[in-house]
Amino acid sequence: MKHYYLVADDDQDTQFLIRKAFGNLGLSVPLQFVNDGEEVIDYLEGRGGFNDRETYPMPGLILLDLKMPRKNGLDVLEWIRESPFREIVVVMFSGSDVETDVREAYRLGVNSFIHKPTSFSDFQHVLSAVHHYWFGCNYIPRIGGDGLIGREKTPFKIIAQ
Amino acid sequence: MKHYYLVADDDQDTQFLIRKAFGNLGLSVPLQFVNDGEEVIDYLEGRGGFNDRETYPMPGLILLDLKMPRKNGLDVLEWIRESPFREIVVVMFSGSDVETDVREAYRLGVNSFIHKPTSFSDFQHVLSAVHHYWFGCNYIPRIGGDGLIGREKTPFKIIAQ
Repeated sequence: MKHYYLVADDDQDTQFLIRKAFGNLGLSVPLQFVNDGEEVIDYLEGRGGFNDRETYPMPGLILLDLKMPRKNGLDVLEWIRESPFREIVVVMFSGSDVETDVREAYRLGVNSFIHKPTSFSDFQHVLSAVHHYWFGCNYIPRIGGDGLIGREKTPFKIIAQ
Repeated sequence: MKHYYLVADDDQDTQFLIRKAFGNLGLSVPLQFVNDGEEVIDYLEGRGGFNDRETYPMPGLILLDLKMPRKNGLDVLEWIRESPFREIVVVMFSGSDVETDVREAYRLGVNSFIHKPTSFSDFQHVLSAVHHYWFGCNYIPRIGGDGLIGREKTPFKIIAQ
């Protein structure tokens, strides 16, 4: 079972760091990247070059930046929650930890709000936590098809520090 | 900073196991318990014996059983998302892993859906994951007040198995 991520972030450095973090963690997770909010919608609707579902499969989870050109993360979130893709898990992954942004994201139905850490080791740590929590513990409905993406059998250990 | 849980479950054995799991994990987390869906609403609204916020503080996170008397988990979730408490993090913690239940929970705006494992060691494991993810990585808006309940600084390690 592949756990596809759709990562929406206009910052190429962040895209690079996400790839690098998953690589370092030994997680060979299929990552798809888009660069702005309009592209998230195009991707989900299979328009604008994203029409081949073999190449651009429906994601299990969207990692969504907040501040993006064309359509920002909150606008995209609002669109998703009123769309046929409303059940999709959306994790805001943002440089912002401003209270009004966090509250607005929850008000609009985000599943979770993660603040991007500035140190790479913490950045890698939170991506590991995101992956293991959402795909290792949680059930996610498969979007655009039947079935669930289910919990793997105790795939990791948590060590309190 | 205290991370209050409101646990809604009519099954006394489950309540006992949750207490035991948090105890075994060394997490001295304040847990409040209610026994059905109507009591969740009473608790959040501070009615029916829950009017003292010192004794019954607003939770950071609700662990919500699905099948409960009076009002089930999906009904409570729907109520929460249309209430002044709509931003609260709700994690469904259910014996069900039936696809229609999971989809309906996401459609109604659950943050996460966890299937209660039958073995106690897995049960404890997923509660550890819930705690460390939501209070160790994620930002949660404080309900009924200002501020965020924020990420602790790398409070745990994840070991892939």
